[in-house]
Amino acid sequence: MDAENPLEKALARALALPCSSDCPPRLAEALQYSVCPGGARVRPKLVLAVAQACGGADMNAALSGASAIEMLHCASLVHDDLPCFDAAAYRRGKPSVHVAFGERLAVLAGDTLIVEAFNVVAAHPDMIRIIAQAVGAPHGICAGQAWECEDRMDLVRYQRAKTGALFAACTMLGAVAAGRDAAPWRQCGMLIGEAFQVADDLRDVAGVSGEIGKPTGQDAANGLPNMVSTLGFDGAMHHLENLLARVTQSTPDCPGREALNAQIVAVSRALVPKQLHRGAA
Amino acid sequence: MDAENPLEKALARALALPCSSDCPPRLAEALQYSVCPGGARVRPKLVLAVAQACGGADMNAALSGASAIEMLHCASLVHDDLPCFDAAAYRRGKPSVHVAFGERLAVLAGDTLIVEAFNVVAAHPDMIRIIAQAVGAPHGICAGQAWECEDRMDLVRYQRAKTGALFAACTMLGAVAAGRDAAPWRQCGMLIGEAFQVADDLRDVAGVSGEIGKPTGQDAANGLPNMVSTLGFDGAMHHLENLLARVTQSTPDCPGREALNAQIVAVSRALVPKQLHRGAA
Repeated sequence: MDAENPLEKALARALALPCSSDCPPRLAEALQYSVCPGGARVRPKLVLAVAQACGGADMNAALSGASAIEMLHCASLVHDDLPCFDAAAYRRGKPSVHVAFGERLAVLAGDTLIVEAFNVVAAHPDMIRIIAQAVGAPHGICAGQAWECEDRMDLVRYQRAKTGALFAACTMLGAVAAGRDAAPWRQCGMLIGEAFQVADDLRDVAGVSGEIGKPTGQDAANGLPNMVSTLGFDGAMHHLENLLARVTQSTPDCPGREALNAQIVAVSRALVPKQLHRGAA
Repeated sequence: MDAENPLEKALARALALPCSSDCPPRLAEALQYSVCPGGARVRPKLVLAVAQACGGADMNAALSGASAIEMLHCASLVHDDLPCFDAAAYRRGKPSVHVAFGERLAVLAGDTLIVEAFNVVAAHPDMIRIIAQAVGAPHGICAGQAWECEDRMDLVRYQRAKTGALFAACTMLGAVAAGRDAAPWRQCGMLIGEAFQVADDLRDVAGVSGEIGKPTGQDAANGLPNMVSTLGFDGAMHHLENLLARVTQSTPDCPGREALNAQIVAVSRALVPKQLHRGAA
């Protein structure tokens, strides 16, 4: 991980106080372990990309929003991996937090990351509201995860809440950091989230474990819905391309719109395992 | 619970959107169950008492701060009760959340309450920072709980973080709602927290389970420190009175200082099981 990268530096700054010498040492370790090294950092990069595309953004505000989003994403992974949920032993190519530090510290590291994420954007009331909506209830990650606990799952709400809402927050935060109205940026964020979910489903079924840093076939193992089992490989690939076309139509007008769209499409395609690109017609 | 009570109404308002019809029904139920009916609501009442004592407070801001504090307190109870921590089967006289709704919804209810607590005070950056400090790391509730996961516990830091910090946030939020500087209100809040901890230790050892709504003797069962086992009953009662004397000396000057002090002392003494008052010299 490039420590000179502004996003990584912002995340390091956000963790500096919580992980300072006054912190119980194993909690501090678990917090660092939960956030660094990261995965693709797709979500915070989206915040920054939208802020840049809008032009004239306060990049410090954008970095705060991006850090908060990534910390909340990491918190959701740590809690999702717990034995009572997915009982996932690996994440990002290493033992998951509860395996490395025990269940108690995994619960606490997730809780702490939620708290510190809000602290990072304390100065920005608009960002707090956007983020709370994306991670709380009734439409955020917590609600999404809670659909898994219902006898009857509302699949559309489930995927929008569990994946789409945080992506919508990314595009909205980028716009807010550039002093723009957030609302027009919700729809393209939700569609990016939907595309990302399809790419993730393809990875889960077809991915090589070493390539994606976690075991494959987890959706089937956990009885979770997966677009590939519904549409087949070709159908899912086709659906992904359709979604990306809708994303590029839905991004609001802004100075860097074309470059932003190209970046979103490239990043989404890169998430799909290589052999599927070779195999796709 | 008195639904006409302004605090209960504020809590109901804070839960209305997260628990609306779009929320997964069992999560909505678990959120309501976690917060209502409450315990003594000691912490949010302290926010309101300080705001009133300071005079000229924005009582809507005070109610927002008070609601956030109570939601975070409830979140900490729900997560503390989990099987990996205290494995507590009862809380507030009814089955704890993970017993009533399962472990997954207990984790999610706690997470959601943390998120929604910050949403309630989104408009108040000062409050966000005070609250984050009180519940995150290195000095907040999460850090306090994480001291239980260390081989060597720093007892003073543990109790300050696990109990004191949230009480300090209460007095500070009350002051902020009245447009006052928060810092001078930290010390008396920490001392109130320390007094409350001693009262709670007395309840844990001597309380009648039905009177306090949870099993007694839990500290010993969980290997947690308890002031009664260190100082004995009389010693702990004496220590409590000493702390209350220090509290009343440390409250900053304000129009309603005397009434505030009287209220703090009365509430703290009321937490001690009745038979100890009868037994105390």
